[in-house]
Amino acid sequence: MTGGAGFIGSNLVERLLADGHEVTAHDNLSLGRREFLSGCDGRPGFRFVEGDLLEAESLRARLQGHEAVFHLAANSDIEAGGRAADTDLRQGTLATYNVLEGMRRAGIKQIVFASSSAVYGEAARIPTPEEHGPLFPISLYGASKLACEGLISAFEHASGIRAWIFRFANIVGDHGTHGAVVDFIRKLRADPRRLPILGDGKQAKPYLYVKECVDGMIYGWARATSGLNCFNLACTGATSARRIAEIVCEEMRLEGVAFEYSGGSRGWVGDVPQVRLDPAKLAALGWTARLDSDGAVRQAVRALLAGPAREDGR
Amino acid sequence: MTGGAGFIGSNLVERLLADGHEVTAHDNLSLGRREFLSGCDGRPGFRFVEGDLLEAESLRARLQGHEAVFHLAANSDIEAGGRAADTDLRQGTLATYNVLEGMRRAGIKQIVFASSSAVYGEAARIPTPEEHGPLFPISLYGASKLACEGLISAFEHASGIRAWIFRFANIVGDHGTHGAVVDFIRKLRADPRRLPILGDGKQAKPYLYVKECVDGMIYGWARATSGLNCFNLACTGATSARRIAEIVCEEMRLEGVAFEYSGGSRGWVGDVPQVRLDPAKLAALGWTARLDSDGAVRQAVRALLAGPAREDGR
Repeated sequence: MTGGAGFIGSNLVERLLADGHEVTAHDNLSLGRREFLSGCDGRPGFRFVEGDLLEAESLRARLQGHEAVFHLAANSDIEAGGRAADTDLRQGTLATYNVLEGMRRAGIKQIVFASSSAVYGEAARIPTPEEHGPLFPISLYGASKLACEGLISAFEHASGIRAWIFRFANIVGDHGTHGAVVDFIRKLRADPRRLPILGDGKQAKPYLYVKECVDGMIYGWARATSGLNCFNLACTGATSARRIAEIVCEEMRLEGVAFEYSGGSRGWVGDVPQVRLDPAKLAALGWTARLDSDGAVRQAVRALLAGPAREDGR
Repeated sequence: MTGGAGFIGSNLVERLLADGHEVTAHDNLSLGRREFLSGCDGRPGFRFVEGDLLEAESLRARLQGHEAVFHLAANSDIEAGGRAADTDLRQGTLATYNVLEGMRRAGIKQIVFASSSAVYGEAARIPTPEEHGPLFPISLYGASKLACEGLISAFEHASGIRAWIFRFANIVGDHGTHGAVVDFIRKLRADPRRLPILGDGKQAKPYLYVKECVDGMIYGWARATSGLNCFNLACTGATSARRIAEIVCEEMRLEGVAFEYSGGSRGWVGDVPQVRLDPAKLAALGWTARLDSDGAVRQAVRALLAGPAREDGR
């Protein structure tokens, strides 16, 4: 599991261990946190390896002996990717190439990849199905995820690996490190009277609770049997930034909070303001999210409020 | 013009000079040949610079003062890209990132990009239009072109550049350095009795004569006014490998040549055996190829036979 100490990775490690798998969590701890895996330490079959996917030679050695790679490592902070321009190219595209080439040399035949709805850019078709085109992402994060999908597709064809690509909605919940839900909680803990909100608050996306995300990935991995399998992993519907703010305030028992919008239709350059994903393809295989988008946000807020408050206020 | 000494680049340089533009031809001469530009030397506004797109710092300096970048540099040998696995990643994706970032810093606002029908992989929809999805290329060359398109799209959104992406058919003609047409001529010059042909000879693709390719690019660049413009650049129809062999034999006045097929439906791993491109979008803007696919092949064979026979037999 690359990105094994990250937000989604650490949740997926826990689930795979619970399912009886042996799991090596691999992470460079740039965004991931070793503490996210503290519940896994000492459990049979669990191992943590600190390492960087950009060190291709040592990665190859570390891949030996594994049956499948869950590749979740990436720069997951889309906004930051827009600032430091080659972050996504290196942490996303180059790292994924190294993983695929390392798998080829180590004879590993399965990759499960965390892609993103960001590959669709501002899709003309809403809700967006997997076969949508053209694919013109508007962020370097989305461009990198698209590049990774292309690399996986080419390796699938040439090397006979099998691949499961999941295009994630916005994932929220335990171990979340950034995004609107985490950001609003942090800000309201610092100042419960006012909440700065990026954009006009109307930007709306589908939110999926992290435990459901992990469940959907494992379900698809077990049931989809093509060489190259690609699924949207999302609920129907969406939640606006304003609605997230309301849910966070409700769960924190705050009233009269002043919502201060920065204005404009986007949260930041590269933000897709309106996202709706068509989850029908995975539904046809038998999996649907139990929580709707608002419900996933509320569940995530509760989990984050119940978790340990970290020193950085997150 | 990156790849300015290459097959298509050198033809495009000639055309832009003829149209009255000043052109800097930039090339690392790994695939390009300085001799392809010998007709341009001494013409007003022409300059050749030997340099590598992977040297980002010096590239930035060289980009200064230009209005538009025609970005044609790439590993154009798809089959070779399959053998040396990171060629396309470096010469395609990383080089394109350096070009875009260099343009951003130099304040250059226009990029015209040579993409490829390889981004479509084995498309379910034939003939394939630009909005086709999903995009799952089967070669590392196609994966790299898709990655470049994503980068261009993200930069277009973030930096306010304008972009023209042309998804090329198979381009043939003067200065061609590889591909079936060049390969068959070379082989028949070496041995006019027999012709080894990769695959079963039934793989068929649309061929476009290089002068028409260059004309279509300039036409689209002048007329398409969106921020991000994407066009198939192709004729309707297609020519099979067997038909190319027949045309080459006819033009070389060879009879009774034994065609020896290597077998299988593909020419090589990563080869898309059946390609048909829908040229309707550029046609709606007013441009269509004058030669059909067989006609383009024949014209290319004549041009290559009339050109100087090079020492390597090509």
